[in-house]
Amino acid sequence: MNSIEIVATGKYLPSLIVSNEEIEKKNNLEDGYIYKRTGIETRHYVEKENLEDVAILSIEDMLNKNNQVNLENVGLIIAASTTYDSLMPSLSFSIQNYFNISNCMCLDVLAGCSGFINALDIAQKYIITSQIEYALIVGAEVLSKNKYNSINDEMLFGDGAGCILIKSCKEEKMYFSYIESIGENSKILTCDDKHNLYMDRKNVYRFATTKTVENINKILKLANLNSQDVDFTIPHQSNIRILDKIASKTGVKMYTNIRQYANTFCASIPIAIDDLFYSGKIKSKDKILLLGYGGGLNLGSILMEV
Amino acid sequence: MNSIEIVATGKYLPSLIVSNEEIEKKNNLEDGYIYKRTGIETRHYVEKENLEDVAILSIEDMLNKNNQVNLENVGLIIAASTTYDSLMPSLSFSIQNYFNISNCMCLDVLAGCSGFINALDIAQKYIITSQIEYALIVGAEVLSKNKYNSINDEMLFGDGAGCILIKSCKEEKMYFSYIESIGENSKILTCDDKHNLYMDRKNVYRFATTKTVENINKILKLANLNSQDVDFTIPHQSNIRILDKIASKTGVKMYTNIRQYANTFCASIPIAIDDLFYSGKIKSKDKILLLGYGGGLNLGSILMEV
Repeated sequence: MNSIEIVATGKYLPSLIVSNEEIEKKNNLEDGYIYKRTGIETRHYVEKENLEDVAILSIEDMLNKNNQVNLENVGLIIAASTTYDSLMPSLSFSIQNYFNISNCMCLDVLAGCSGFINALDIAQKYIITSQIEYALIVGAEVLSKNKYNSINDEMLFGDGAGCILIKSCKEEKMYFSYIESIGENSKILTCDDKHNLYMDRKNVYRFATTKTVENINKILKLANLNSQDVDFTIPHQSNIRILDKIASKTGVKMYTNIRQYANTFCASIPIAIDDLFYSGKIKSKDKILLLGYGGGLNLGSILMEV
Repeated sequence: MNSIEIVATGKYLPSLIVSNEEIEKKNNLEDGYIYKRTGIETRHYVEKENLEDVAILSIEDMLNKNNQVNLENVGLIIAASTTYDSLMPSLSFSIQNYFNISNCMCLDVLAGCSGFINALDIAQKYIITSQIEYALIVGAEVLSKNKYNSINDEMLFGDGAGCILIKSCKEEKMYFSYIESIGENSKILTCDDKHNLYMDRKNVYRFATTKTVENINKILKLANLNSQDVDFTIPHQSNIRILDKIASKTGVKMYTNIRQYANTFCASIPIAIDDLFYSGKIKSKDKILLLGYGGGLNLGSILMEV
């Protein structure tokens, strides 16, 4: 069976940057309230762009940064989001349309904040078992349109999109995935069709700092590696306190960009992949661990060789 | 690699049956108007049930009809719908929760009316490449909550759910899939997050009677079979005129139940599978062709041995 490799990545963050100061003033919160609790300094909000726009702009970013890349041979587009404004066509079909990609299968994954992990894992399954050579995987969110119960939730979120293009490769490259769902705890993080988001912060924190640790240990065991063998862990960017806790419990080297972008649900992992890839820190054959977790509840990791 | 086989099937149609006469009277349409145009006589509408309920009731039907079947070893649940009232958790997680299934991956597929085909194909990929042994695939819709522009659209639709349980099998069983997306024509059949459904009936008819025929011919070629080799074709139940046209153009033996249930989008194929399986007409080793098509635009077929 073939392996997969990452060909190119892209991201888009809307140009409107909202600072903590602005939110703190508006809500009568003390200076430094948000940063202290979340590690977030700024978040990006859409002005006129919709979900389709941010997704498309992340792909244009990828194409602009990679002159040799085109989408002609893309045989599969999988998008993941929780903030759909069109259920039919879903996002992947709008992407196909915009970039005029023919001979392609499109689908969207609805699996909570960690849908990007499911999307990438499905793409890997298609590449290793079918004739599909290139797959485009996109995570996009417009969380600023959600309605929140509390400013303590609202301050956590930002808008954005990220994408990665993967291809089939003959060279053997390590790939493991371990995805688990915990529907019995679904009530602690929900979003209905009217974009009302509810979060039980205390229990979400507990879930995000325990089940993730178990998940990382499971995938490391599966791969017969220890945390020091992984070059970079690229987690869902939920909250710096959660990420610090996971890092200290597992010993993984954690990449974070939550300070700038806040929590962007399905978009956070591909945005972080793009940031890390263009930082020049990643070398060929590095081992990266992608870690998703969130509503559903759903969590999962992918351990792969670059 | 392992093959997949169907273990059990189930369906649920809400108890409220709405006749053509009722709709025709209310809308000042002549007697027989609906049947003549659609082949539909009745459709089922939910009264108190929501999407989660109809999905769960289809699984309970499967369990009631199959005493020896349980969901203990289900490692994957994939649901498909276009009428979500909860985006997080999505339907598969609610199913996991209700039936108390642990050690399981859940996800939903958003791929228009033919999402069930994508869901089953993804499940097949997981079964042949991973440790997952049993997968539950569910299509469910509450289309009666949509808002329609015209009674000519509204009269086409009904509510319901269907499910199939598949398992890994060592015996080699034929399986082919051919899924294609046509995002460039997405505008002819859309549904937004406020459940407003729009349909360009003329162009949907054209798509549904041409691209499906090409798709069937492609998968038959892939499998090196002709239409007479297929024991039953189980299509998305959209409209009897569409189904008759596809049958006459391809020569396949078409199973239809649209008369009773109308068009139930993602639920129509698994409901029809259940009806056909319990009709006693299907024998082991029969070849069945599942054909999905609809919004996205998306279409695809699965040709598999029972």
